[in-house]
Amino acid sequence: MTLPTTSREWHLVARPSGWPAVADFALRAVPVREPAEGEILVRNRYLSVDPYMRGRMNDTKSYVPPFGLDEPMTGDALGEVLASRAPGFAVGDVVTHRLGWREFAVLRADDAVAVPAGGEVPVSAYLGVLGMTGLTAYAGLKAVARVREGDVVFVSGAAGAVGGPAGQLARLLGASRVIGSAGGPEKARTLTEVYGFDVGLDYKAAPIGEQLAQAAPDGIDVYFDNVGGDHLEAALDVLNTHGRVAVCGMISAYNATEPPAAPRNLGVVIGKRLRIEGFLVGDHWGLRPEFLREAAGWLRDGRLVSRETVVDGIDHAVDAFLDLMRGGNIGKMLVRLDG
Amino acid sequence: MTLPTTSREWHLVARPSGWPAVADFALRAVPVREPAEGEILVRNRYLSVDPYMRGRMNDTKSYVPPFGLDEPMTGDALGEVLASRAPGFAVGDVVTHRLGWREFAVLRADDAVAVPAGGEVPVSAYLGVLGMTGLTAYAGLKAVARVREGDVVFVSGAAGAVGGPAGQLARLLGASRVIGSAGGPEKARTLTEVYGFDVGLDYKAAPIGEQLAQAAPDGIDVYFDNVGGDHLEAALDVLNTHGRVAVCGMISAYNATEPPAAPRNLGVVIGKRLRIEGFLVGDHWGLRPEFLREAAGWLRDGRLVSRETVVDGIDHAVDAFLDLMRGGNIGKMLVRLDG
Repeated sequence: MTLPTTSREWHLVARPSGWPAVADFALRAVPVREPAEGEILVRNRYLSVDPYMRGRMNDTKSYVPPFGLDEPMTGDALGEVLASRAPGFAVGDVVTHRLGWREFAVLRADDAVAVPAGGEVPVSAYLGVLGMTGLTAYAGLKAVARVREGDVVFVSGAAGAVGGPAGQLARLLGASRVIGSAGGPEKARTLTEVYGFDVGLDYKAAPIGEQLAQAAPDGIDVYFDNVGGDHLEAALDVLNTHGRVAVCGMISAYNATEPPAAPRNLGVVIGKRLRIEGFLVGDHWGLRPEFLREAAGWLRDGRLVSRETVVDGIDHAVDAFLDLMRGGNIGKMLVRLDG
Repeated sequence: MTLPTTSREWHLVARPSGWPAVADFALRAVPVREPAEGEILVRNRYLSVDPYMRGRMNDTKSYVPPFGLDEPMTGDALGEVLASRAPGFAVGDVVTHRLGWREFAVLRADDAVAVPAGGEVPVSAYLGVLGMTGLTAYAGLKAVARVREGDVVFVSGAAGAVGGPAGQLARLLGASRVIGSAGGPEKARTLTEVYGFDVGLDYKAAPIGEQLAQAAPDGIDVYFDNVGGDHLEAALDVLNTHGRVAVCGMISAYNATEPPAAPRNLGVVIGKRLRIEGFLVGDHWGLRPEFLREAAGWLRDGRLVSRETVVDGIDHAVDAFLDLMRGGNIGKMLVRLDG
């Protein structure tokens, strides 16, 4: 087999202010170098696009460094090994790694994670429900919110790659009632009909505060926050004493140029003794073996259901990201590259 | 000794909207009944006025029930037993209890706590630094923020009855640097000169965010919040990774008719993995014996310093409360009644 000599990769060429535009990105062809000792060459099959990437497009210090201008962007990807100069990896192995946004990647084998061959689940699951987004949901529920038997759990962004697993895992970890919110009637229906939430709220149909209060007459014990703003305000209003908020994301603010004015009811944390705690999946890699064991089992026996929205072709990777920002996806948003 | 037949007590007669006014309260004379079996009659010497009382003047469900209209208000008080029909209490004993805002109180002995006789600290300390406000500071630092050796700690409302002890106890529990904020130059000086804070910020002199960033070049690890709003926003900006916020009060919002628009930077809880947790001292009574043992020792040997602002006469109790709301006190605000 002839190895590729050219790879196309997406560069950030301008820092967006507010909503990103197509013109902020460029798809460029670059030479592919040969793997050195200890490295592998991977042909990417799936690229992950995720909301946290928006933060990396700003030139501000954050928990992940910003993307460089006129440099390739990075992100999770899954592909097959085309050449290996590292023990433990053979041509044809399927791996996940962090050099997404490109067709071919040369990386240190230490930075790749092997995906089980011949599994009963599609390999793309390792970028989603069995990957970073699934583990994020699991860690937020288990280590941060500490979901207990009988908890009423509210998940926002519940049709997304983290929210969908979060609602289902909450139930599997003992929640007695799971309420989700998403944008639009189709997504709201997906929550109940596909993922088995008790209630699916369409936040575009009526103020989320009113809908949540109605859906949770006895309050909620845990809020898994992917949205922030009015959703967080609504959750604080109905959280029960000693309730917990695991803050995973605040997508409502990612493209805002003015800081959000909500929540305006933060004072309720005192009387209700609420805990609001932000987290990053990177602090919880120790949970991964336990998570994979449990989640893979639930996925095989159908108690955990995964949805994907797949966009074909690397030329459409930015479109996929922008569509994700607008909420165009149900489940994990992936870009599939031709074989 | 003749027992009193009449007691004056403060009633709430109108629910304030925004800032309370003198006309919302009335001082009324009522008959004093004789104590029944198991009860004691107490002549109050000190009444405590506290910011949380503002919330009880609203007709909204909260962690403490609202004051009833045309009923006596309640609150912490300290006094001496004039008559006892309960074992364990003798005439002349000094006790604290919850029937403040009045001259004489008849209460079940179970609801009174004896104050050590002949102690080396003034009895009024049992309404302040050795009472509810001191224990609040201790519980917030120890059980909620979990202050550790070497932490940099920021305390707002630091000239107040909780904040003053909070900053000093933070140091005694291991903090390496303690920063406080208060309103006005005299209070700010008290923090450093009397309480031994490293830095005392006058939030009226310049935006608290700028001042705090300058005072904490290496960030802060713990924020003990008595104020909310812009102070919380400032703290979130400079909190280090895995920082903790113990939310004790949000006095900036208590008299607001519009919900506050701050903090507008709540999203930083994710990347910095911050924990924001509200608490009530009532959940932490279990810490009281340990707290009294430690704090009484520190108070005696001068490592813990207490200040009081004392207003004389029950007729001025409402004035004292209103002055407290405006920040007129340094340290614990007390009303002293004539003997």
